[in-house]
Amino acid sequence: MRISELAEATGVPVHTLKFYLREGVLQPGRATSRTSADYDDEHVERVRLVRALVEHGGVALSGVRDIVVALTSPPPSRHDLLGAAAAVIPTPAPREAVDPEVTALLEELGWCAWSGAPALGALSDAVAAARAAGVPLDAGTLRRYAEGMALVAEADVDLALAARGPAEAMRIVVVGTVLGDPVLVALRRLAQEAVSSRRQREATPEGP
Amino acid sequence: MRISELAEATGVPVHTLKFYLREGVLQPGRATSRTSADYDDEHVERVRLVRALVEHGGVALSGVRDIVVALTSPPPSRHDLLGAAAAVIPTPAPREAVDPEVTALLEELGWCAWSGAPALGALSDAVAAARAAGVPLDAGTLRRYAEGMALVAEADVDLALAARGPAEAMRIVVVGTVLGDPVLVALRRLAQEAVSSRRQREATPEGP
Repeated sequence: MRISELAEATGVPVHTLKFYLREGVLQPGRATSRTSADYDDEHVERVRLVRALVEHGGVALSGVRDIVVALTSPPPSRHDLLGAAAAVIPTPAPREAVDPEVTALLEELGWCAWSGAPALGALSDAVAAARAAGVPLDAGTLRRYAEGMALVAEADVDLALAARGPAEAMRIVVVGTVLGDPVLVALRRLAQEAVSSRRQREATPEGP
Repeated sequence: MRISELAEATGVPVHTLKFYLREGVLQPGRATSRTSADYDDEHVERVRLVRALVEHGGVALSGVRDIVVALTSPPPSRHDLLGAAAAVIPTPAPREAVDPEVTALLEELGWCAWSGAPALGALSDAVAAARAAGVPLDAGTLRRYAEGMALVAEADVDLALAARGPAEAMRIVVVGTVLGDPVLVALRRLAQEAVSSRRQREATPEGP
């Protein structure tokens, strides 16, 4: 298909597609003349992935580039998959050193985090920010949060293990993590509402 | 203290503080002359809250304004707290109608979501985006995610119930939700790593 047809198939304007080509997040089409190229279903799929990462995952274009490069050259074994995935999943750069309380929590949970894992720094920063803003995030609450996220991670790993091969598994880990975050954030708000009304019902004595 | 001292106490430059005053996210100080004002610990606290929401919560300044207005006039009873909180917790505006599968999931879970809850639309959009990008988010996985977030929400509600009054509870719900999201996101990545290495150990036969 021509670039105008790719635009129609994806709902993304031609000038944005050309921008994606220039930025290297969309692979070039097969050249058919000096000024035109042919695109196929893989281009449609790529454009949808880029849109989803940008619009729903809030990923910057440089992050999208890292992700698509990683997805087109996944590690040969599942063994290295998580390291390769962790390297491209966008995580805010840590500002401070890792909080010893965070290290203690992971030890208590038996979570062997590679000490260079960017999520360790991100967790320390996020906990410090919440506390500085007056949210009493104590160790017990953090542990309960961790237990909830362990259930989520079990489901994540099952999804990745059900993939047909390392390329598909890599895609599920990276894209499923980035685009799964907003799913979890929305579920948290709905769960708060559900838990809060259940507690309210339990606290209110029944009428006649 | 003077505005220069407020800047020193918070690490936020004077020109940013003046911007916050103009934008209405920082309450005015007590005027001491035509050109200067006196600030106190409540201003320090507010500046820290604004910084945390902007930098760690990724909240736009208009959203910060809604939040600080809500925090300074909390509902008189805990009864209306969650509705008031939900109204100011930033949630992306839904693009499509609520997915019937999402409604079915909430029914199955016994989560009575108010049908106008913005999180319902946000959840539908996020699920659609993940699936469009090739992540096989089936109903079973969503249910497991929901179970994880239910544990998180129980901890959230306990934190709010332990607050000293409605103003403090409102602060914990709103700020704890916004600044808790990055905590959960970081914990998810660490949990994925922990679950993945445990599964790998279990799958590998022990050596001699």
